[in-house]
Amino acid sequence: MEGHLTIALDGMGGDHAPGTVVRGAAIALKRRPELRFHIFGNEPKIRRLMKHMPALEQASQIFHAETVIAADEKPSIALRQGRESSMRLAINDVKAGNAAAIVSAGNTGALMAMAKFVFKTLPGVSRPAIAALMPTQQKDCMMLDMGANIECDARNLFQFSVMGEAFCRAVLGRETPSIGILNVGSEDMKGHEYLRQTADMLRASHLADNFKGFIEGHHISEGMVDVVVTDGFTGNAVLKTAEGYARFIASEVRQSFTQSIAGRIAAPLALLALRRVKKQFDPNKRNGGMLLGLNGIAVKSHGGANARGYANAIGVAANCVIHGVNERIIEEIKLFDADGFAGISES
Amino acid sequence: MEGHLTIALDGMGGDHAPGTVVRGAAIALKRRPELRFHIFGNEPKIRRLMKHMPALEQASQIFHAETVIAADEKPSIALRQGRESSMRLAINDVKAGNAAAIVSAGNTGALMAMAKFVFKTLPGVSRPAIAALMPTQQKDCMMLDMGANIECDARNLFQFSVMGEAFCRAVLGRETPSIGILNVGSEDMKGHEYLRQTADMLRASHLADNFKGFIEGHHISEGMVDVVVTDGFTGNAVLKTAEGYARFIASEVRQSFTQSIAGRIAAPLALLALRRVKKQFDPNKRNGGMLLGLNGIAVKSHGGANARGYANAIGVAANCVIHGVNERIIEEIKLFDADGFAGISES
Repeated sequence: MEGHLTIALDGMGGDHAPGTVVRGAAIALKRRPELRFHIFGNEPKIRRLMKHMPALEQASQIFHAETVIAADEKPSIALRQGRESSMRLAINDVKAGNAAAIVSAGNTGALMAMAKFVFKTLPGVSRPAIAALMPTQQKDCMMLDMGANIECDARNLFQFSVMGEAFCRAVLGRETPSIGILNVGSEDMKGHEYLRQTADMLRASHLADNFKGFIEGHHISEGMVDVVVTDGFTGNAVLKTAEGYARFIASEVRQSFTQSIAGRIAAPLALLALRRVKKQFDPNKRNGGMLLGLNGIAVKSHGGANARGYANAIGVAANCVIHGVNERIIEEIKLFDADGFAGISES
Repeated sequence: MEGHLTIALDGMGGDHAPGTVVRGAAIALKRRPELRFHIFGNEPKIRRLMKHMPALEQASQIFHAETVIAADEKPSIALRQGRESSMRLAINDVKAGNAAAIVSAGNTGALMAMAKFVFKTLPGVSRPAIAALMPTQQKDCMMLDMGANIECDARNLFQFSVMGEAFCRAVLGRETPSIGILNVGSEDMKGHEYLRQTADMLRASHLADNFKGFIEGHHISEGMVDVVVTDGFTGNAVLKTAEGYARFIASEVRQSFTQSIAGRIAAPLALLALRRVKKQFDPNKRNGGMLLGLNGIAVKSHGGANARGYANAIGVAANCVIHGVNERIIEEIKLFDADGFAGISES
């Protein structure tokens, strides 16, 4: 097993599971031959899918799971009744030390609830967060929290900043990731009181040089910062709205090439020219939402991801392990305590 | 003055004032010859701009104002020090009964602060809100609040629903406008407690049939509802993010037609085909943010609007007067009290 990296896969999570999971694992294995998989789910189905993939078959162990967490299951119910589910067994596998990380394309809320229950949070971290990558005019930026924490206080947001910065440095290889707090204006007196407190904490911390102050919604796509910090309610609303408008505009652009004579003549070349844009906004390109702040690596793939997208999520998980993102977070959170903010109350 | 409708204009507000204001007024006058304008600002400048517009000159009175509220002025400072500003004098003109509504492309926060101070809120309304129209796959939808109220409670959001519905019916002519509360999921148990309270209030009110429950970010562009209700923090973040991504995608599409050979060949016809999309997302098309809930009509034009956009803002103001949007809101807020929610505490 020398040099191998084992990832536990929730074989049944996602819209096209287990097909996407198996094909995604095959792509990931081609990219990184050192990967090994523990796949949890319907064993006969998964075996059948692998029949003509000898390399993947050899790199994988399949563990039968009787149940699947439904996409619309309440996290609390999933936690109580999903002990034999493919998702839970995959998480347990990491906890037991048999795998280094878990990837699931299933129910995000259930994944967070179960992973938090099994892994617990990292020492010093008060709340884990869900992070996602978003396309910008510059490099991709990272936004957190995307919905794990509906209500946040300054300590939570400060820790999200630490976790986002550590991920950007460790996994994305950015040297000094810049941090912005999402607000309704760039001026210092704007917005919620706890945002101003977070800004004060960042300015007084070891991240002072990384912190670029408050940013507004349009600064996200402008790529003003590497890490956008916000509460889970706003992050979730902003991400889904941006995705919705991107899809809407894309569909309008497509339609414009079928509904006018000029469009129909230009269509073949125009759609060729637009492939670059399509590629840039392809959600599968940056698939892999991170559950940050947990004492275990858990990566969420988009439920509708294709095999390539799923393979990217596996790649994110592998990078988190290899680059020791959790060790960096622990280290930085300690600095944070050393900076003297430990006394700030949690909500 | 029989049959005339006088609108007070802040001649100096906006990026290209007073030029845009004067040209916008001229366009609005052509569309509605019954309009009359009271224009507040730098009289010599405004007079010079009107020199070759005899119709507008005849329909306008110019009132000199010494000062202008800067775009980045704090609302509290504007309120205290801006008593002789073009914005404030235009608001006062409505209060004095000389004009039926005010339009400004200036500082939104200052406009809200001054208009609230001078007009006060409508009877029964606890907080005014800023509403904006957004393009969707169906008809435009209306979203409020866009930033006037950073913190909201259930009573505020319920009243925003009432105000948005009344505006949609009165000004946009929709018979039974549908209402959705922006949340992180469509399920009843999701999100902030005060969102669930607002939903309960709507379900028990005269708007029960209009209320479609919780919606998520992507439902906005899908056109799921006519009125999207949210707090001012989320609304502001969501609007600016959507605008940012729309601009980003548009710029990527444009670039794709200059940066590849296929694109350059297709460009002339492709850009012709894309005009429809450009038009649909043109912010000037739906210019005119409403300040709802004030005892006086105040419309905010986008600071960067062109003359046509400014004329649209004047049109929105005129429609609000003609269709009696404030009378409708008062009437519905009374129903709200009759529905028995008057006792719910304000934040």
